[in-house]
Amino acid sequence: MEDPEHRLGEFLEKIRADLDRSVCFWLTHSHDVQCGGFFICLGEDGHVYDETKYTWLEARQVWMYARLYNEVDRFKTAEMLEAAENGGKFVLAHMKRQDTGKCYLSLTRQGLPLKTQRTIFSECFYLMAMSELHRATGDAQYREEAVAMMSRILCWVLEDDSGLGREKLAGNTPVSSLAVPMMLLCLIDQLTTMDPALAANYDETEQWCLEEVNKHVQRNGTVVLENVTPDGKELPGSAGRLMTPGHAIEAGWFLLQIAKTKGDKTLQTLAIDTFITTSFSRGWDPEFGGLFYFVDADGESPVQLEWDMKLWWAHNETMIAMLMAYTETGDTKLLANFATVFDYSYSHFVDTAHGDWYGYLNRRGEITHKFKGGPWKGFFHLPRCLMMCEKMLEDLIKRKQ
Amino acid sequence: MEDPEHRLGEFLEKIRADLDRSVCFWLTHSHDVQCGGFFICLGEDGHVYDETKYTWLEARQVWMYARLYNEVDRFKTAEMLEAAENGGKFVLAHMKRQDTGKCYLSLTRQGLPLKTQRTIFSECFYLMAMSELHRATGDAQYREEAVAMMSRILCWVLEDDSGLGREKLAGNTPVSSLAVPMMLLCLIDQLTTMDPALAANYDETEQWCLEEVNKHVQRNGTVVLENVTPDGKELPGSAGRLMTPGHAIEAGWFLLQIAKTKGDKTLQTLAIDTFITTSFSRGWDPEFGGLFYFVDADGESPVQLEWDMKLWWAHNETMIAMLMAYTETGDTKLLANFATVFDYSYSHFVDTAHGDWYGYLNRRGEITHKFKGGPWKGFFHLPRCLMMCEKMLEDLIKRKQ
Repeated sequence: MEDPEHRLGEFLEKIRADLDRSVCFWLTHSHDVQCGGFFICLGEDGHVYDETKYTWLEARQVWMYARLYNEVDRFKTAEMLEAAENGGKFVLAHMKRQDTGKCYLSLTRQGLPLKTQRTIFSECFYLMAMSELHRATGDAQYREEAVAMMSRILCWVLEDDSGLGREKLAGNTPVSSLAVPMMLLCLIDQLTTMDPALAANYDETEQWCLEEVNKHVQRNGTVVLENVTPDGKELPGSAGRLMTPGHAIEAGWFLLQIAKTKGDKTLQTLAIDTFITTSFSRGWDPEFGGLFYFVDADGESPVQLEWDMKLWWAHNETMIAMLMAYTETGDTKLLANFATVFDYSYSHFVDTAHGDWYGYLNRRGEITHKFKGGPWKGFFHLPRCLMMCEKMLEDLIKRKQ
Repeated sequence: MEDPEHRLGEFLEKIRADLDRSVCFWLTHSHDVQCGGFFICLGEDGHVYDETKYTWLEARQVWMYARLYNEVDRFKTAEMLEAAENGGKFVLAHMKRQDTGKCYLSLTRQGLPLKTQRTIFSECFYLMAMSELHRATGDAQYREEAVAMMSRILCWVLEDDSGLGREKLAGNTPVSSLAVPMMLLCLIDQLTTMDPALAANYDETEQWCLEEVNKHVQRNGTVVLENVTPDGKELPGSAGRLMTPGHAIEAGWFLLQIAKTKGDKTLQTLAIDTFITTSFSRGWDPEFGGLFYFVDADGESPVQLEWDMKLWWAHNETMIAMLMAYTETGDTKLLANFATVFDYSYSHFVDTAHGDWYGYLNRRGEITHKFKGGPWKGFFHLPRCLMMCEKMLEDLIKRKQ
């Protein structure tokens, strides 16, 4: 196999062009100039096939535009700021319920509420949008919204979840889901990026999150499980054996960022060896390539019908994780893994003709869904990955010069 | 192609053996002698891979055992009756909430509640189990449970759905879902089979259901859509364009049964030409065979990730529908369609080694899930299909002698 270190320039060039295409696709096709906010359900060529506004994706698109404006020189433009602010207005006007402070999951084109979810995730994406908009604009309202939402979320997670509206039934036992502490780590990173002075407020919570995430490492470090008991034991049944490799790998790069900030080598090793490398080994399809969506730790069939599909976002998270792990360690095996995922992605997901990626492939890597945006895919995982990889590749190339 | 009328004996022989294997599989592996009720999550060879008791499937298994006992001579055994009654005890003890009369969606092995759903379907399957158990045992308690549940369901559907617990949000508009009138027609058939004297009570509701079902026929009879407006117009977006061919075909044989009872030729034509034949043409995969799970009426990609999978139950419903349509009309094209589905099913879904069918294939017809029972698959669609087809084939063969 060719030494992947020789390919850094090629990776950078393709990723930069791909990011430009993705930004152009969403700027061109998704803006609802009449009602505000973004059309999410965009076909292969950008046509709108459904007008529902999925709030996770409305808020994430605001975040993404603002983050590009804040972090990438060529996107620090009036157009990008305006795109972020226009989306932000819609989110601010329609996403949050005034009575409970919870957010809706989906809205009509006009912004009327359609669905809510009894989790914290819509609220997390609302926070991210507001916080990044504050960075871009300096507007105090956005900062206040973000900080107030953080308090609400922490209250639901750590003190009293009755505000989420889930009925407690006699058979329910507490479950620790990997998504919750992961998401909180992401929010803490967001708020402290917005204002480093806030870090002290969340130190204790960060520590709690790290302990929670750690509980999901089971069987002597050979699996990262999605759901465990609150005291870190395996749960029985399909839910207990569930692995979501892309998700564990995403957790891996969150942990790696924290390890870097803290200079914590033990955490770095846990992130790279267990969350990233082990999950990659267990999740990569040895027959057709690509990362499975779900895997059962004992080799039973996962009950999710889509378990063997290859989803774009899992590949985005793995690209970030492998490149970050290589940057931190210089271990070329990690760069080789990046190259494997890069090559798979650029021969399967990318649509250079229209821009952006297809989202869903079957096990063999054939495109099953032609659309670029849908109820769970918008302008977020792909551009975040491309933006982060572009920056890391630039730094790596500079370092070698 | 071989004249399918010559194959009636072959069909009968294979279907009878298959029914015996399926009954044996579930009798052997699914009974929880310790806690009562049935294990649902059974692997390929019958091992239990999850102990959750999914109530749709608990109740349907009770119904199926009782129906086999009531209708098929070789299953009128003490073992079958005991199996039905034991399951019935568990359902009666644990499935229904005492406070609201709603039913749970899933229970722990011991019968403690885990989840509820804000629909009427758990309640419908509870009714079916109770009603068929009354037919088998004569026990008045079961009849009372069934009739009382019917009143509750009709109240939720026709008068006031606030008891279902769905929050009304400002963007919600009323939707007519094909599943609701279909299910009610099935319940009316169930209760009048239990006691023909009840028919008069439900005449008006049956008429309402037929009108509701009819609204789902759109575009000059060329599509049956899953969701329409209450006044029978198309809804915008993906939900409005959604077709579930297996479901429309199932509705077709429900309608065909009613057409037969009433001697209604117009309804017979609608059932066969539109619900059954049109849905079959639009849903059958021209490339790999098998019936798609979901189809978008305009050729967009359905947003469901599993849209192109081939699910066992859709093939069961199509076998029933085609054979019933052939029985009613003698049209050999319909028998040829039956043969097509039979041949696909018996070369893809059947596991003669362990008994019962696999439930899930990818588009190419490869098995994606090894289990025989899971959260949505139990002892219901397959044995109902085999029992009904066995009877129809016996009658067809007798008729020709």
